[in-house]
Amino acid sequence: MGRTSDAKEKILTAAQSLLEHRGYSALGVAEICKAAGVPKGSFYYFYESKESLALAVIDEQWAAERRDWQHILTSDDEPLQRLRKLFAATESRQREGQDSCGVVSGCMFGNLSLEMSNQTDSVRGRLQEIFEAQVDMVEATITEALGRGDISVADPRQAARAVVAQLEGQVLFAKLYNNTLQLSTLWPNCLALLGARDPQAVEVS
Amino acid sequence: MGRTSDAKEKILTAAQSLLEHRGYSALGVAEICKAAGVPKGSFYYFYESKESLALAVIDEQWAAERRDWQHILTSDDEPLQRLRKLFAATESRQREGQDSCGVVSGCMFGNLSLEMSNQTDSVRGRLQEIFEAQVDMVEATITEALGRGDISVADPRQAARAVVAQLEGQVLFAKLYNNTLQLSTLWPNCLALLGARDPQAVEVS
Repeated sequence: MGRTSDAKEKILTAAQSLLEHRGYSALGVAEICKAAGVPKGSFYYFYESKESLALAVIDEQWAAERRDWQHILTSDDEPLQRLRKLFAATESRQREGQDSCGVVSGCMFGNLSLEMSNQTDSVRGRLQEIFEAQVDMVEATITEALGRGDISVADPRQAARAVVAQLEGQVLFAKLYNNTLQLSTLWPNCLALLGARDPQAVEVS
Repeated sequence: MGRTSDAKEKILTAAQSLLEHRGYSALGVAEICKAAGVPKGSFYYFYESKESLALAVIDEQWAAERRDWQHILTSDDEPLQRLRKLFAATESRQREGQDSCGVVSGCMFGNLSLEMSNQTDSVRGRLQEIFEAQVDMVEATITEALGRGDISVADPRQAARAVVAQLEGQVLFAKLYNNTLQLSTLWPNCLALLGARDPQAVEVS
């Protein structure tokens, strides 16, 4: 039993890394099993299909990222500083990934949205839920900042979506140029998108 | 000779549509030839590999899009209005695609950046050139707006990159949600990113 669970975990870990670096379509079950060091037969004991494994990988990845997002966005810092820390954490994560494997792998949810959201309804649905949850968290922070008079936005939800869109767009560039420097612009761009009262003052605080 | 050129064109057209809707990795040469209605043997007469075909598709797509971008961004309109028209054209193109095939297929350059930029240096290089050209064009427009005192940005190039990143991020959402409505936010978000002097006045002009 211990060994069986171990095989399931090994498949999930191998798939996480492969999916992050090579995408979904390029992967085959045989390759995943080889990387995991488990016989191909055991794959279907644990997962119905490559798609169900992809969903498991997405869930695992989001469980970890959501913890980070919640930790940062519900801290005692001032609301705008929480957003700043969220961007810094995004930059660090991408830089660490690049340090360990040589390439900026980008955001798994963004990657899969563009690669396969049109092809698999279950994956599309799951990715929609994840981005809605991200927008929810950013919106709550924006609403707090708005209440304090730190920013000026007409529609906190649209503003939150614009911030997450900016994040995804800049992570796309970081991946394309294999360069995380671009991510340092997330903070000033966020302040502009939110009409921050006094960007200079916020920036140095 | 006429028939030969015809086959090359058919392969390119079929690949363009398949690449747009299914991505690169999911496609095989056999499938492309079947969709094009040409024998598989003729594929390698015209293209060295699937990769070289992908580059040809990217070039063809960008040649058409670049004409649109140039037409819009070098018109006699006021600079900010040109950006507004660029976003409207983006929204129209995505909506027309959805009307014709049921799904928002997104930006081919963004899709391929996230799917394969880490795997193929030639494609990565070509996509970098395309995004640099887009940023160049937007930067020229921003610099004009800056000269007129319409906006307030510290670094026109970074601002241009932020606008293109916002565009890619929102097109990602349009594809994920199969809904182009989100793209109507590009204009107000762009004004915010550029610190437009009086967004309200620009918006109704």
